[in-house]
Amino acid sequence: YSKLTFTFLLKGKMSVVKLEECRERLRTELDNVVDFWLKYSHDNVHGGFFTCIGKDGKVYDELKYVWLQGRQVWMYCRLYRTMDRFHKPEILEAAKAGGAFLRKFARVPGTSSGQWKCAFCLTRDGKAVKIQRTIFSECFYIMAMDELSRVTGDEDMQLEAEEMMKQLIYWVQKDSSGLGRPQLPGDIPINSMAVPMMLLCLVQQLVEGRGQEVVQKYRELGNWCVQQILQHIQRNGTAILENVSPEGSELPGCLGRLQNPGHALEAGWFLLQFSAESGDEELQRTAIDKFVELPYQYGWDKEHGGLFYFLDVDGHCPTQLEWSMKLWWPHCEALIAILMAYSQTKRPELLERFSQVYEYTFSHFPDAKSGEWFGYLTQEGRVALDLKGGPFKGKNIIEQRCFALCESPSVEN
Amino acid sequence: YSKLTFTFLLKGKMSVVKLEECRERLRTELDNVVDFWLKYSHDNVHGGFFTCIGKDGKVYDELKYVWLQGRQVWMYCRLYRTMDRFHKPEILEAAKAGGAFLRKFARVPGTSSGQWKCAFCLTRDGKAVKIQRTIFSECFYIMAMDELSRVTGDEDMQLEAEEMMKQLIYWVQKDSSGLGRPQLPGDIPINSMAVPMMLLCLVQQLVEGRGQEVVQKYRELGNWCVQQILQHIQRNGTAILENVSPEGSELPGCLGRLQNPGHALEAGWFLLQFSAESGDEELQRTAIDKFVELPYQYGWDKEHGGLFYFLDVDGHCPTQLEWSMKLWWPHCEALIAILMAYSQTKRPELLERFSQVYEYTFSHFPDAKSGEWFGYLTQEGRVALDLKGGPFKGKNIIEQRCFALCESPSVEN
Repeated sequence: YSKLTFTFLLKGKMSVVKLEECRERLRTELDNVVDFWLKYSHDNVHGGFFTCIGKDGKVYDELKYVWLQGRQVWMYCRLYRTMDRFHKPEILEAAKAGGAFLRKFARVPGTSSGQWKCAFCLTRDGKAVKIQRTIFSECFYIMAMDELSRVTGDEDMQLEAEEMMKQLIYWVQKDSSGLGRPQLPGDIPINSMAVPMMLLCLVQQLVEGRGQEVVQKYRELGNWCVQQILQHIQRNGTAILENVSPEGSELPGCLGRLQNPGHALEAGWFLLQFSAESGDEELQRTAIDKFVELPYQYGWDKEHGGLFYFLDVDGHCPTQLEWSMKLWWPHCEALIAILMAYSQTKRPELLERFSQVYEYTFSHFPDAKSGEWFGYLTQEGRVALDLKGGPFKGKNIIEQRCFALCESPSVEN
Repeated sequence: YSKLTFTFLLKGKMSVVKLEECRERLRTELDNVVDFWLKYSHDNVHGGFFTCIGKDGKVYDELKYVWLQGRQVWMYCRLYRTMDRFHKPEILEAAKAGGAFLRKFARVPGTSSGQWKCAFCLTRDGKAVKIQRTIFSECFYIMAMDELSRVTGDEDMQLEAEEMMKQLIYWVQKDSSGLGRPQLPGDIPINSMAVPMMLLCLVQQLVEGRGQEVVQKYRELGNWCVQQILQHIQRNGTAILENVSPEGSELPGCLGRLQNPGHALEAGWFLLQFSAESGDEELQRTAIDKFVELPYQYGWDKEHGGLFYFLDVDGHCPTQLEWSMKLWWPHCEALIAILMAYSQTKRPELLERFSQVYEYTFSHFPDAKSGEWFGYLTQEGRVALDLKGGPFKGKNIIEQRCFALCESPSVEN
């Protein structure tokens, strides 16, 4: 593909963004990040991956977080399957070993008999430490099993993913009591953005490249997820709210006013992907206007740069202690969403957004000295936690998606 | 009591601390804080107290957090009962109304039949929203009921407190499955500082001024709590660790290395109070050396001042996103613990410590403009959350204890 140069007005002065340079940088970052995890995270004694890794690569806790086990298996497989330079036996073997650990230990007996449930956290040798009363460990388990079945051709593994998916759909659409939360009179039902967003991501994962039978099987669910996500457009289209009622109305209090710009942007690129596959131009416009432009506008810190973690739509102070911190992942979601929107529309103002997020991201998160990225900055952009991996930060799907997308020819002008 | 002036060397220059000035300031702060909550927190429609209150006194969420309902009832009663200028009908009435709301709505059916359990959070009209799988809502419920029974003379209320206490002891010493956490093979038993510390606080509350029968009833439990707390002295006496094994050995990983200086200081003043009541001089020395001096030493931020929220004893980065923030409550605990240690020993270096914490606390937390205190600062000391009340910050027992202690004549030289 051709070398590209874009010029546009940013903050009152001419800036030149060389997208080809971005590509080169992202390619280098991806190599560097993969190397880091290949080098430091493999547990050759018990299998699986260490997930708590300090700034210099040292394991500071042997606990194995299931979200991150699943993501790492997914990422290795996806790299192996879709990018030539990662199509190497060591990556395949690491993915298979991680998958075997995950399959052997992640699933634990649920609180209600017969239900499938994954642990949130395991000891080094695979004993369950904690179970979350949510669906996310299961989501990443499905991602891992499905992607792994694609590189190994193991149909049993694909079946495992689909069986777990069935369980997930049951919890979300029929009865969530199996998740273990007691039913309380004041605990009203909520449509939380994370749920339809993750389910849509799973639908896209499960149907990708499969035959019409599978596509058909998940079509209705995909449409349902999109509708659930669109319910989060509130206040006459001026805000994305993280939690709404199942009927799509605003909820009272902090819960109802909560905004999570990173989640909104993440939902944005799932919607963009869905709209591209279904050819739905109205959905594409909504995705760009409401889930890319809008959260970028309200989520960007005009004083210090970067995307806030949480906000309150009415400007109250969020009650989350970390609300003003800058986390790596919302910035990855933003880069993906904006670049995907640009690649579909070629609107120049989207490249301007991309440039701003790119500049902030690459001048703040990567650790030039010891590799990988810092994950958690103060509002002012100082490193607040210098770990490279922790309970919620691992070898990240979103980084891979971000880097891979930026490398893809579809971004060409 | 006499007016006191202390001189000592601080940071290389002579500083003069006028303890009488501190007293005056603390008296004013207490009046100001009580006024704030009397003015803004009462729900005259449904009873109970609003706990989510913004910087200017506006209720930003109607949810009622049970920890804070309990603390506010306790605080009104304690003020009414022990300090002349608060012995006013409006304070008594507010305490009784809050107690009635708490008693009517906080207790919910437990997960196992027959067990008592309190909700963590209620709707404005008292419907349970969330139940924590810990003992702390119950602790503050007991504090409220017991203190209320002291001002009303209501024996039934005292019985309620003692019955709930029985439940608590059963969970802590016999079987915790009623709290609702699934038993998992990797979830090892832990002696978490918060548990014996809160139980010791409750023992001190329940026996205060009661007859020998009650004192006798809780004597063994008090001793047990002290032993459990002392197990947290680790690494040859050089560190207080937040979590240890039930046998008192260090636990692996982040959990085992976690330090919470505020908790250690809080345990310190419970131990000091216990040692004073029992005349145990060795315990007094241990309390001062290990639970006052030591956490002050490792917990104080030498660069920016203030006490860290969390630390890792080996200097790894804690995984809590808020680890470096400065919270109001550890500073209150420190003021109480240090002043109590000083009042028992009159060691001048303790006044030096007090002065340092006092200076930081009163130059950072109080809001001169709208009253009450900010609760959450960045590491650098900037206000990070400007709320006055939130899910974990209310009209605080520790502030009252702090102010009351500072006003007490026992601090005289």
